[in-house]
Amino acid sequence: LLHGCIQGQHNQPVVKYAEVLFSNNCSPFIYATKNKVSSEREILQNLLAQPKLDGILVEGTKTALPNPNLDLYRRLQKRGIPLVFFNGNYRDLDDALFVLDDNYGGGYQLVDYLHNKGHTRIAGIFKSDDIQGHQRYFGYISALRDIGLPIDDNHVLWYTTENKDALLSGVVQWQEQLEATLSGCTAVVCYNDEIASLLIQSLLRMGYKIPKDMAVVSFDNSRYSYIAPVQITSLSHGKYNVGRIASEILVRLLAGEPCQSQFVPWELVEKESS
Amino acid sequence: LLHGCIQGQHNQPVVKYAEVLFSNNCSPFIYATKNKVSSEREILQNLLAQPKLDGILVEGTKTALPNPNLDLYRRLQKRGIPLVFFNGNYRDLDDALFVLDDNYGGGYQLVDYLHNKGHTRIAGIFKSDDIQGHQRYFGYISALRDIGLPIDDNHVLWYTTENKDALLSGVVQWQEQLEATLSGCTAVVCYNDEIASLLIQSLLRMGYKIPKDMAVVSFDNSRYSYIAPVQITSLSHGKYNVGRIASEILVRLLAGEPCQSQFVPWELVEKESS
Repeated sequence: LLHGCIQGQHNQPVVKYAEVLFSNNCSPFIYATKNKVSSEREILQNLLAQPKLDGILVEGTKTALPNPNLDLYRRLQKRGIPLVFFNGNYRDLDDALFVLDDNYGGGYQLVDYLHNKGHTRIAGIFKSDDIQGHQRYFGYISALRDIGLPIDDNHVLWYTTENKDALLSGVVQWQEQLEATLSGCTAVVCYNDEIASLLIQSLLRMGYKIPKDMAVVSFDNSRYSYIAPVQITSLSHGKYNVGRIASEILVRLLAGEPCQSQFVPWELVEKESS
Repeated sequence: LLHGCIQGQHNQPVVKYAEVLFSNNCSPFIYATKNKVSSEREILQNLLAQPKLDGILVEGTKTALPNPNLDLYRRLQKRGIPLVFFNGNYRDLDDALFVLDDNYGGGYQLVDYLHNKGHTRIAGIFKSDDIQGHQRYFGYISALRDIGLPIDDNHVLWYTTENKDALLSGVVQWQEQLEATLSGCTAVVCYNDEIASLLIQSLLRMGYKIPKDMAVVSFDNSRYSYIAPVQITSLSHGKYNVGRIASEILVRLLAGEPCQSQFVPWELVEKESS
């Protein structure tokens, strides 16, 4: 019996984990942190009170910020309960296994792709509280530097878990910040398809033609990239799904096999927006 | 002759560095990064082209984010040019000396102080791109956890170097986010006096009485804390000015003396806002 706990922000990966775990005779319990450290703390306290718990798959919460719940993760580790992090992990819990997308490489690859298409002024929109946001930004800005393209902090816009909804609802206040960020640019790298599709809607309202006036690229190659008014060029997780790999690692750990952390490569899926 | 370079965001510390350096027969050159990695890169390239450069005092740029300019800092280090970081340093350049305020301890101390005053619902407003913001947040949320006060991610508001001006100008869009953040709280810890004084102006406009309806505390004990409509309870750098200490360390390094990094304690200065 596996009392694996799965904390997920996104539905699609959760299905993958559950598939792998069920097919290994495990009975996963799924808890949603909603990327809130308050929810994460409650869930971990709940798990620590459970007498039978075999392993935990964790999508870290606000992984770009110092985390106040590492005390509880360390207590789980002391009990010998294996932890496998996916999507985002904690820098200060560096002895735990992880499976992460190559977010630095992805940001780098997108800028390189845009540069090959002739773009030289490239903006970025990233999430500031998840480590994926920091790493995608780092790849983006490192590629600008290495290619010799202009770097300008004013062309980077940051948002958080808590103000994403305001951004997504397209409220007027963000419009101004968006316009300032994109001013003078011909292309933009977005944190994910969800934000990219919102951006495309805003740009179309503002009279932009895509990709002619502004090329838009992003990460995930999710359904957002297909249902957007202009289909979005996006990096795909391809057949390497971090959730599936993390689940397989957890199953192997429980069988006593040696395992190691992994960075998973992206595959570019070119569509209409670039 | 010292070709020390001083990169500063704040005027008052710069004066302190200059005092120390001039009094040691140094001729400091002062460069302003404006907390932009683009400006930082230009300045560092400029410095690398200078044949005579004895040492550099650096206030790190956007230190909570991965930095694309570490290649240039490493080139300076390879030339044997001493670097001393103050206010904020780079995690990935961990062999460089630093002088930092005890930002974690400060955040912790402010929550403890507010709790002793009877507050139990305490919000926070922090800067997301500087390591000081992360560490002040970490002290704040760790104190809430240790004291047993409720933690709620919705009571934390993050801003950046680039959107600070929108926040400071008190534009309507932020009003809503502020109200949502402070909803149900009786006290708030602010990243610094500049933001705290803006917040107080907004709260007064909204009809709040301070500290009766909302206690406000912050960091720096700067002139903002004295000229605000309600004088602000704030943590003071006291006689331990990180800029002065960093300058002294640089002078001692150049004289061949052994030196080590330091965290500098705060002193609470209670005024009218709490």
